[in-house]
Amino acid sequence: MRSELLDLILGLLPDTHPRPELRAFYAMLRDYPQRGGKGLRSELLLLSAQAHGARQGTPQWQSALWLGAVIELFQNWVLIHDDIEDDSEERRGKPALHRLHGLPLALNAGDALHAYMWAAVEQAGVPGAYREVLTMIHRTAEGQHLDLDWVARREWDLSEADYLEMVQLKTAYYTVIIPLRLGALAAGCLPSDAFTPAGEALGSAFQIRDDVLNLLEDAGNYGKEIGGDLLEGKRTLIVLHWLNAAPAKQRAVFLEQMALSRADKDPARMAEVLNWLRQSGSLDHAQDYAAQQGERGLALLREALSGAADPAAVANMLGLARSYVTREA
Amino acid sequence: MRSELLDLILGLLPDTHPRPELRAFYAMLRDYPQRGGKGLRSELLLLSAQAHGARQGTPQWQSALWLGAVIELFQNWVLIHDDIEDDSEERRGKPALHRLHGLPLALNAGDALHAYMWAAVEQAGVPGAYREVLTMIHRTAEGQHLDLDWVARREWDLSEADYLEMVQLKTAYYTVIIPLRLGALAAGCLPSDAFTPAGEALGSAFQIRDDVLNLLEDAGNYGKEIGGDLLEGKRTLIVLHWLNAAPAKQRAVFLEQMALSRADKDPARMAEVLNWLRQSGSLDHAQDYAAQQGERGLALLREALSGAADPAAVANMLGLARSYVTREA
Repeated sequence: MRSELLDLILGLLPDTHPRPELRAFYAMLRDYPQRGGKGLRSELLLLSAQAHGARQGTPQWQSALWLGAVIELFQNWVLIHDDIEDDSEERRGKPALHRLHGLPLALNAGDALHAYMWAAVEQAGVPGAYREVLTMIHRTAEGQHLDLDWVARREWDLSEADYLEMVQLKTAYYTVIIPLRLGALAAGCLPSDAFTPAGEALGSAFQIRDDVLNLLEDAGNYGKEIGGDLLEGKRTLIVLHWLNAAPAKQRAVFLEQMALSRADKDPARMAEVLNWLRQSGSLDHAQDYAAQQGERGLALLREALSGAADPAAVANMLGLARSYVTREA
Repeated sequence: MRSELLDLILGLLPDTHPRPELRAFYAMLRDYPQRGGKGLRSELLLLSAQAHGARQGTPQWQSALWLGAVIELFQNWVLIHDDIEDDSEERRGKPALHRLHGLPLALNAGDALHAYMWAAVEQAGVPGAYREVLTMIHRTAEGQHLDLDWVARREWDLSEADYLEMVQLKTAYYTVIIPLRLGALAAGCLPSDAFTPAGEALGSAFQIRDDVLNLLEDAGNYGKEIGGDLLEGKRTLIVLHWLNAAPAKQRAVFLEQMALSRADKDPARMAEVLNWLRQSGSLDHAQDYAAQQGERGLALLREALSGAADPAAVANMLGLARSYVTREA
């Protein structure tokens, strides 16, 4: 993440208080933002602002920076709550917040960080940004509900189309569509309608790449535990594709393990499942699909921005969007 | 709650979706608001708006109604998350949301409802309301952190002053101070500075009355489980006052039980503790303190509103504020 952005975020969050308990609370709010997120989404937003004509050092650029802070604060509070919902162990190479402080305190800290995100929206002062942030939260929460509901009901009778609908809600809005739109608004432009289909394609590609990385043995730079999605019973394109053609015995072992809680899953059995998945060709299928969606999204985006104010920024933006599908971490 | 308010809330929340899972999600968002909360806080806000000169049927009144919806939506998303944090069993006579749908889905629904609260802020269109809502969330989350942190660390070495600082943050802002201020803003008036000390006194009185009701055997209309606070290890003025003078043996039994999780607590021992508390005079002490704080708050409020536009509304408002301390449910 750009250092100016982190400075804005840390300047917005409270720091000190006469009561030691509340100093500790403030430190919890500052924890995830300081763990060095890559800041891909705010970078996309800033490149979109630049492509639409916002120049560094102008009030428009300052607004774009604040909206970048909004996107990063959004991701941070959502991650605190996601980590609780999935009972994840790690986040960005350290224990998840609720593993450090217990669930109740971490949940409450996520709520407080959510409110500071709205304080950043106010700082940006960009007409229309408010509605975009509401849409981002609504769609992300809907996608998250689908994901969690399938886990809770142990629903595996799902098509690849079901998965794509889920990730288009859960990932595409906050990762691509809304950053692109907020960048345009910060520059005083009307966002292109094509940002939605472009973002759905690129967002799916991004999430599928994330799912692939989560299963690769050598994803050393990746900030989450390898195979964690599988232990959490997450639906991925890889698993759904494999399950569709898996031998009956493998399928039965998989569904048996998926009916158990994370703690009750048999590590040896789960290692077998991981091997079957890796040997099945489903990782390649998912990666190919992600690449194809990525190209589709890039083409749509290139066309939507063909008359943009700053062609060099458009090129940088397309390069960043391309890295969504090829990234190693 | 006034029916116009519930109509605004239910009209704002989404209702239908092609996917059954998302229809179920929307039903979760609509659940707590439909359980018939008393709407004390929105009522206080509306009476404050009226006292400051907002007349029914005017655009100012419509803004006040939207801000009433904000306060109710705030309470509802906070209650969903509180019930998770405390692992409460019931809310308004029915199972808590996370007991119906599991923790992950309920947590996510609370986040979505939080965002719909911000949509209601936008609908109100009242300058300055945004800042008030931010302050309300920040102070409430800080108070909630103190409360939860003491539970998590099994901290019982606390004074009555510690308790009061906690409830002034946790309860006073969203129950009194911010409703009073938002009512004034809806009517186009600058809120009186005296609303803060008045609200701190009345808010403490309200929370202490809540704590007292939670321990009374015959609180039949009360929407939470009797003695639930004790099982959850909540710090209350009653417990802190009793603990200060309790015989060493009673104190030891209490601390021993408090070191256990809710499920591990011995029901017979806890019934003994409840009896000691009820016989100690600490309930009377707390009730007397609440009454005294209530009178102080009322006097401050009466003075602050001595020149108000609508004296009849001020009288209704003072009557409502008085009921905070005498309520039976």
